[in-house]
Amino acid sequence: MIPTMMRRFPMSFYSKIIRKSPISQSFFLSRSYSSEANDQISHKKYTPKVAKGMRDFSPEQMAIREKVFETVRAVFSKHLAGQLDTPVMELTETLTEKYGEEGAKLIYNLADQGGEILSLRYDLTVPLARYVAMNRLFNWKRYQLGKVYRREQSQASKGRYREFYQCDFDIIGKGVTMIQEAEILKIIVEILEKLDLKFIIKVSHRLLLDALLKVAGCPIEKCQNISSSIDKLDKEDWNTVKQEMIEKGITEDVADSIGKYVRIKGEAWSILSELKKFKEITENETGNLALSELEKLFEFTDVLGTTQYLSLDLSLARGLDYYTGLIYEAILLKTDTSLGSIAGGGRYDNLIAKLSENKVNTPAVGVSLGVERIFAFLEEKYKNEKILHPKRSVLVAQAGSSNKYLLVKERLKICNLLWNGGIPCEMSYKEKSDSKGQAGYAGEVGIGFIVWIGESEIERGKVRVKSLNTHEETEVEINDLVSFINNKGYSAF
Amino acid sequence: MIPTMMRRFPMSFYSKIIRKSPISQSFFLSRSYSSEANDQISHKKYTPKVAKGMRDFSPEQMAIREKVFETVRAVFSKHLAGQLDTPVMELTETLTEKYGEEGAKLIYNLADQGGEILSLRYDLTVPLARYVAMNRLFNWKRYQLGKVYRREQSQASKGRYREFYQCDFDIIGKGVTMIQEAEILKIIVEILEKLDLKFIIKVSHRLLLDALLKVAGCPIEKCQNISSSIDKLDKEDWNTVKQEMIEKGITEDVADSIGKYVRIKGEAWSILSELKKFKEITENETGNLALSELEKLFEFTDVLGTTQYLSLDLSLARGLDYYTGLIYEAILLKTDTSLGSIAGGGRYDNLIAKLSENKVNTPAVGVSLGVERIFAFLEEKYKNEKILHPKRSVLVAQAGSSNKYLLVKERLKICNLLWNGGIPCEMSYKEKSDSKGQAGYAGEVGIGFIVWIGESEIERGKVRVKSLNTHEETEVEINDLVSFINNKGYSAF
Repeated sequence: MIPTMMRRFPMSFYSKIIRKSPISQSFFLSRSYSSEANDQISHKKYTPKVAKGMRDFSPEQMAIREKVFETVRAVFSKHLAGQLDTPVMELTETLTEKYGEEGAKLIYNLADQGGEILSLRYDLTVPLARYVAMNRLFNWKRYQLGKVYRREQSQASKGRYREFYQCDFDIIGKGVTMIQEAEILKIIVEILEKLDLKFIIKVSHRLLLDALLKVAGCPIEKCQNISSSIDKLDKEDWNTVKQEMIEKGITEDVADSIGKYVRIKGEAWSILSELKKFKEITENETGNLALSELEKLFEFTDVLGTTQYLSLDLSLARGLDYYTGLIYEAILLKTDTSLGSIAGGGRYDNLIAKLSENKVNTPAVGVSLGVERIFAFLEEKYKNEKILHPKRSVLVAQAGSSNKYLLVKERLKICNLLWNGGIPCEMSYKEKSDSKGQAGYAGEVGIGFIVWIGESEIERGKVRVKSLNTHEETEVEINDLVSFINNKGYSAF
Repeated sequence: MIPTMMRRFPMSFYSKIIRKSPISQSFFLSRSYSSEANDQISHKKYTPKVAKGMRDFSPEQMAIREKVFETVRAVFSKHLAGQLDTPVMELTETLTEKYGEEGAKLIYNLADQGGEILSLRYDLTVPLARYVAMNRLFNWKRYQLGKVYRREQSQASKGRYREFYQCDFDIIGKGVTMIQEAEILKIIVEILEKLDLKFIIKVSHRLLLDALLKVAGCPIEKCQNISSSIDKLDKEDWNTVKQEMIEKGITEDVADSIGKYVRIKGEAWSILSELKKFKEITENETGNLALSELEKLFEFTDVLGTTQYLSLDLSLARGLDYYTGLIYEAILLKTDTSLGSIAGGGRYDNLIAKLSENKVNTPAVGVSLGVERIFAFLEEKYKNEKILHPKRSVLVAQAGSSNKYLLVKERLKICNLLWNGGIPCEMSYKEKSDSKGQAGYAGEVGIGFIVWIGESEIERGKVRVKSLNTHEETEVEINDLVSFINNKGYSAF
C-alpha cells in the first residue's frame, strides 16, 4: 500500500503511527461503527495513495522538520536577510535553458487548460533571479524556504524525491572580492554546527576548472560536457570517469592530463600552495585569477573561523550551467563516511541578466541547503524520543467510574482554563474513559501531566495533577492550576 | 510590468522596495557595471513576470505572514494536534467528485509527461482524508499549513488568487455530540483574538437547511443547487437570490417559503428559541436533530466563552459537497462592515469513507483559515512600521575617511563576534562606504544599532555603539560588545 519511493525512507515513524492506533482508537472513540458504506458513498474502486516519488510527512517527522527550519531561519535572519516567497509555478519560458540538457527533462509542466504555459519550479534560484530582474533590484539579500519539483525517474534516482524542500540564501550585487562568498560559507557552517552535524565543505572555482581543462588540452566546446563527468568523481572511481570522458570524444592523453589535476584535494591553504607550483596554471590568466580569489577567500574564512571545514577539491564541478566563479558543496559525514551532499552553491554572475529585460549585469552568489538528507539523518537520531508534544502538555482526564455527562463539561471547563492560560492540553472526546486507558495514552504520546478530575475533587474546587516525568501527584486548587503547571517550567523540545 | 492580478493587492510593499533601491544601491555597490549583455547572454526577447493570478511576497510581507503563521501554529499545537504535510500534487482521481461542478473546473492538472495523472491540490481537506484513509487512522487530530491552487478566472474572481495559503485543523473520529465542533470554534476564536481582529462566526447546520428546504417544498433533487444560491445571501439581496432560485426551476411560492427561513439570523440562543417555535421544523426528524445539536453546541460554547462571537445564520450553506452537520464561517469586520470570510469549515462524516478502500465510516470535523485576507488586513495596519529587522540588529560600519583594505577585515571580525554571539548583524560589502550613507541605510531599513569602527578605536580594542532608538552613543570594549547589545534587551517584532 505504501508506494515504492516511500519505502526507501526510514519507516520508523510510519510504523509508530500504525502501532499506536489501537490505543488512541479505544481512547477517543465513543461508539463503534460498522464498516458498511452508507448511501452517499460511491462504490467505484479506489485505492488511496500518494503520487509516486512524493511523500507525506507525519507529525513526528514534521516536529523534526520544523526544528530544522527554525534553525535555518534563525541563522539566515541573523545575517539580516529578509524572507522571500514566490509561487510554486513559473512561466515555462522563465525556466528554459537554465538547467542544462539533463535538468530540462526533469521539469514538471502544467496541462494547457487555456491561458499561460506554466511549469513547476525546479529550484529557488531561477525564481529569485526572475524576481530580482522584475523588481529591478541591484543590491539585496534574501532567503527562501520552499518545495521544488523534479521528475526524477525512480530507477535512476536512488532515493531522490520528486518533491523536496530547499532552503536558499543569496546575496545580489557586487562586493569586495570573496567577502560575500565567505559570509555564505559562514552561514553554512553556522547552520550545520547548530544542528550538531559532522560535515566538510568542498570548494573549487569554475575558472580554475576552465583553466585546467584548457591546459590539459580539452577542446573548448567539450568543456561543459567533460565537467559533468568530472563531477562524478565523488561517486565513481577514476577509471570509470576516464572511460566516460573518452567516450565523450577526448583522447586518452588529454583524459590522463585532466586526471592529474582533478584528483587533487585536501586542506585549503596547503592545496592552494601546491597548485601555485603548477606554472601552466599560474601563467594561464583565468587560472591565476582563480588562485588569487581562492587566496582572498581563505584570508576571510580564517577571520571567520571556518577554514577548518574547507576542502579544496578540484573534482568539484557542480552540474548547473549558471555558475561563474567560486563553487562549494557541503557533505554530511558519519564518522568518515560521506552521507552525500547537503548544501551547494556558488557565484552566478550572468543568470539575472539573462532574465532581465535590458540584460542588466547583476552579479550574485548563494547557497541552497538540501534539507531532505538532514531530515532523514535527524529522524534516525531521534527515533526513540517522544518529541511530538511539549513537556508541559496536559491531558485532562476523568477519574473513577462515574459515568455522568456532567464530567464532560467539567473536563472542558478545565481545558478552557488551561488553553486560556497558554498551556497545551487535550481531553478524550468520549463521555467516559477508564483511568488506565487515559493514563496509557498520555504516556504513549509523551504528554507531561495528567490532570485528574472526579466529582469529589470538583466539589472542593480541586484537581489532582500527576507529572509523568517525576511521577509526583499533587492536589491543586483549580484557581492555581495554570501557575502550578507553568512553574514546573519544563521547556519544549 | 506588474500583472493585473497583482495590482489588486495593496501595493505599499512593492513600491517601498522600489523606492528603496537608490539608497541600498549606492550603499552596497562597489563598482559600476555597464548594462551591456556579455557573450553568454542570449538575445531572445524575454520579459520577467509572475504567473497570472499569483504573486511574490516581499520580505516586508513575509514578516507579517510569519507572524500570522506563528500565531496559528501556536494555537493549533496548544490543542495538541501534530502537524501534517502532504505533497502539493495528488492523483487526479483523488480529487474528482469532491468539489461540486464549479469546483471541478478550477482544478489545475499536470501535463501528461508519462506516468501517473496528477493535479494540484484544491484544498487541504481531501489530502487529509486521503492520508487518513491510506494510513487507516480512526482517531486523530492534525493541523496543516500549505498552499492550495484554484484556476479562478480573473473576471469573476474579484481579487481572489490562484495560489493561496490555507491553515487547517481537523479532528478525526467521533466524540460526544458537538464537543469537537465546540473545540474547533474555540480555536478559531483564540487565533482571531490573538491577531487582534474584529470578527463574528456564522453557524448553521446542514440538516437544518435540508429540513427547511423540505418543509418549504423544494424538490429533493434541486436542494444542492438551491443551497448554492442561498449561500450568496451574504453578498446579494434577497430579490436577486430569489430570481436565481426561480431560474433554477422552483416556483415563486417555494422561493418565498424558503426566504422566510433563510433570512433568519442573530444571537445564538435567541434565534434557537425562535426556531423552536416553528412546529414544521421541530416535527421534521432531521430538523429536530439539528436543533438539538445546536443546543448542545451552545452549552459547550458557553463553557468555553465563545457564544458571544456566534451568529446563528440560516443563509449559511457552504459551497462544498462534503459537509454533513454543523457548518461555520468566520467573517472579518472593520467596525460593522464585513471584509469577507476568513475561516470556514464544518462536519464531514462521509468524505474519508469515500477515499478509503473498504469504505470505513470515519467521521471528521475541521476548519480552514483563509489567511490571505488576514495578511492583507495586517499589511495595511503595519504599513508604516519598520518590522523587517529585529530591534537589536546591528550594522557594523566604518567611520572616517580611511580607505584601508584592513578595515574590511576588521569589520568582518566584529560581525563574526556578533554572529557567534547570536546577534543579527550585517556590514556593507564595499571596501569603503561613507558615514552618511551607512547611517542613512541603517535608519531606513530599521536597524537598531550602528557599531562604528575606526583605526584609532581598533588600536585601543574599542568600538562606538550608537542606538538608533535612543540616539545614545557609547564607547564599548570589543570584548564586551555582545553582552552590551544583549543587555539593551529589545525584543523582536
